[in-house]
Amino acid sequence: MNYLPTDHVKISEDGLSVIFLDQSALPNETVFYSTDELQRMYDAIKRLEVRGAPCIGIFAAYCCSVRARKLWLSGVTNADLLVARVSAEMEYLNESRPTAVNLSWAINRMLTKGEEFLEKTAGATTASLCEFWEQEATRIHEEDIEMCKKIAEYGLSLVKDGDGILTHCNAGPLATSRYGTALGPILLGKERGVELHVFADETRPLLQGARLTSYELYNAGVDVTLICDNMASIVMKSGRIQACFVGCDRIAANGDAANKVGTSGVAILAKHYGIPFYVLGPLSTIDRACPTGDEIKIEERRSDEIKEMFYSKPMALPGVKCYNPAFDVTDHELITAIITDKGILRAPYEESIRKAFEG
Amino acid sequence: MNYLPTDHVKISEDGLSVIFLDQSALPNETVFYSTDELQRMYDAIKRLEVRGAPCIGIFAAYCCSVRARKLWLSGVTNADLLVARVSAEMEYLNESRPTAVNLSWAINRMLTKGEEFLEKTAGATTASLCEFWEQEATRIHEEDIEMCKKIAEYGLSLVKDGDGILTHCNAGPLATSRYGTALGPILLGKERGVELHVFADETRPLLQGARLTSYELYNAGVDVTLICDNMASIVMKSGRIQACFVGCDRIAANGDAANKVGTSGVAILAKHYGIPFYVLGPLSTIDRACPTGDEIKIEERRSDEIKEMFYSKPMALPGVKCYNPAFDVTDHELITAIITDKGILRAPYEESIRKAFEG
Repeated sequence: MNYLPTDHVKISEDGLSVIFLDQSALPNETVFYSTDELQRMYDAIKRLEVRGAPCIGIFAAYCCSVRARKLWLSGVTNADLLVARVSAEMEYLNESRPTAVNLSWAINRMLTKGEEFLEKTAGATTASLCEFWEQEATRIHEEDIEMCKKIAEYGLSLVKDGDGILTHCNAGPLATSRYGTALGPILLGKERGVELHVFADETRPLLQGARLTSYELYNAGVDVTLICDNMASIVMKSGRIQACFVGCDRIAANGDAANKVGTSGVAILAKHYGIPFYVLGPLSTIDRACPTGDEIKIEERRSDEIKEMFYSKPMALPGVKCYNPAFDVTDHELITAIITDKGILRAPYEESIRKAFEG
Repeated sequence: MNYLPTDHVKISEDGLSVIFLDQSALPNETVFYSTDELQRMYDAIKRLEVRGAPCIGIFAAYCCSVRARKLWLSGVTNADLLVARVSAEMEYLNESRPTAVNLSWAINRMLTKGEEFLEKTAGATTASLCEFWEQEATRIHEEDIEMCKKIAEYGLSLVKDGDGILTHCNAGPLATSRYGTALGPILLGKERGVELHVFADETRPLLQGARLTSYELYNAGVDVTLICDNMASIVMKSGRIQACFVGCDRIAANGDAANKVGTSGVAILAKHYGIPFYVLGPLSTIDRACPTGDEIKIEERRSDEIKEMFYSKPMALPGVKCYNPAFDVTDHELITAIITDKGILRAPYEESIRKAFEG
């Protein structure tokens, strides 16, 4: 996958800073930042410089490792105190985006595993804890690569050469690591000579489809056509779409799936036109503590993202108010299958999800 | 309706030029142009400086009148020759936007009525023909105002104080004359103390919802909230929408309705959520020579409208291709009613449309 800037989220060799590609500047500029500051890490997620649920999880894990090492070097030499200080900082980082489950999942894993390490390891030092955390963050990253590959394999089994695919937002390599989730079957297919024709929703207001998805697919040599979100209906009606592939930020125990705003609309259109609608994501995206989509908190963002951002001039009067939810929830009844690293889950979802976790 | 620039399309007092508001510069700038040149008239429609199906019809009628007078003054003193020359010019103007029925309707009416005038009027001169044409153009304009008022009355009868309305694109006063079609019930309601809460789709790629609809409604004191097109689903799901009002560019004999791209998607969402979906337009928008929506030619526009227009930088790589249809067709089965100046038409549409034309 050499068409992409590799390692768009990584830790520096000395483990003292996290390095990330500013995805908000794509496709015009390729800018990497390096930081060891908590506030800068928070802002990177909040401003969508780092975005895509799995990518945020990997980033947060590296942030946890970097902050731990930084605190240790600044004089926090008691391991329990270090855990407490890192926990407090990660609690703050966790507030940067409320909808993505991977953020809290990665933070919880880092903290829980860190505590376990201390309990189990006789004579553990803050130095060894920091070393452990860095290894754990790297494991999260490597596991994500492995998960994406498996999701891509399962997804690819559901389509055939020449099929048209509609995708919304960006769930490609940039949102994850390698392959991606929703784009995984397409990119894996490309490697194997299975050509899929992709229609990418531009995904307003932040244009992840235009700026990131079409960028990734075009660079990978995939046949991609960019459309406005409101053109999905006419494209589906024309018979050019055989499947929809979308990512997910959080899936409830009943299969309701939160993803970028507009996803639920795509699912309703797909149902209307009789096109299979697939949600792709690692099993870790399923939050079994969340019974239905009604319990998923939807992040609301600023009006200027709709009225001003990216534009050369404001596109509505200053007094006009906006509603800007970042996500919506797709009802499980609209989802043909949830494609995970542990297999293809189908309705009834409560049962298939339970089995996947048990299996 | 004093909040609007009045007479956004009109003829100069001497009848020698047509004056129009450049709607493509709204909401940031209010610029009027005056022209007597055919190419400038064509460009005004093509570039969407003059847009909205009824408004294009009125504009074309004034253009016809202005060009006739200009040709006469430049030496075309034979009435039959003048008709022939004007016909040829109007044939060219008619190509500026293929989907809107009002453009060809207004041009045909001007030409047919002009020929009738010559046949019926003993001693008709080119001068009297020019005078007749100017009066006919003014009649088309006045009739549109009257039609919009009737559509607004019928539409208002279908909603109640406090209802939430979703609209797509712009079918307000700027697209027509006074009241508008889709916005007619909302603006008439406002005058009568019936408060409707409007959610306006921004309507990519040309943002007519952001630039024009929210501008018109905000200036009229209507409670309006701007959303991205892909947010219609979450807004409908939240229970805040009791009806959808959209305009139309051409309606087939079976009730299939062509309107701004994305309209068919809104209709499918409305059906899914059990919300009535109303198409508003004068009876003249119904093209009985067109049996179904499949026969409606859909205009495709340039890629740069999606990738570059309005933006401070391109939002996708230069090589990425786009599909940019300007309209889509909403299947008649998705339409709760077609609200015309001759009454509210319901399924079966072939029958109700036939009756409306006969009545």
